[in-house]
Amino acid sequence: MSRELLNAVKYDSNGLVSAIAQDAETGDVLMMAYMNEQTLRQTVESGIMTYWSRSRAKVWVKGESSGYTQEVREVRIDCDGDVLLFKIKQNGPAACHTGFRSCFHRRLEDGELVIDGERAFDPKEVYGA
Amino acid sequence: MSRELLNAVKYDSNGLVSAIAQDAETGDVLMMAYMNEQTLRQTVESGIMTYWSRSRAKVWVKGESSGYTQEVREVRIDCDGDVLLFKIKQNGPAACHTGFRSCFHRRLEDGELVIDGERAFDPKEVYGA
Repeated sequence: MSRELLNAVKYDSNGLVSAIAQDAETGDVLMMAYMNEQTLRQTVESGIMTYWSRSRAKVWVKGESSGYTQEVREVRIDCDGDVLLFKIKQNGPAACHTGFRSCFHRRLEDGELVIDGERAFDPKEVYGA
Repeated sequence: MSRELLNAVKYDSNGLVSAIAQDAETGDVLMMAYMNEQTLRQTVESGIMTYWSRSRAKVWVKGESSGYTQEVREVRIDCDGDVLLFKIKQNGPAACHTGFRSCFHRRLEDGELVIDGERAFDPKEVYGA
């Protein structure tokens, strides 16, 4: 594990750092979630995006339920060290638990939020009822 | 201002929401900062990226010192409403106060952080000593 990267990260008061996942191929931003030091280490060592789930308060290997994991292609850190940017290969059809490719599938258009694209999977089929 | 967008945003306990700025042309993620409701309104109404500076605790019209403003091209919100994604036109040579095009100019390579690209401006010349 990279000592230099670990030293450069500035965690917030909850011990978390923001982690953006960007599709390495298309450049689309797929999601943003959080990592703590443990899941950042695990992500870099395993090459599989591993977040800290704030709502479930546990280690979250992205895709552990759906099988739609994210493989790390590149790791970047911003100038003040409080945001990480990962270029990733998204396995399976989608990153978002709603079934859309990207969590950012709602776009502002003429003052209204419109859905961009179609569902790539049915959440009920993948996660159960 | 879009009532629907304002209603969809979920602010954190400090009243802030994460805002990612992505170059609309190249797809490069340039920076991530924060907005409160006031600066989100101002951003959408003016079309110029306006953040809330946590360190200075004030409204931060990006580029107000350097002239390197960011024009909003597209506004997106993620599935749970706590992250905004703006596709923007970056005016001037760079988004980062260090003089690099992107705040994410440090990349992990063989366990070390390497600088990607060259400085597009000299911070001392732009911001003063």
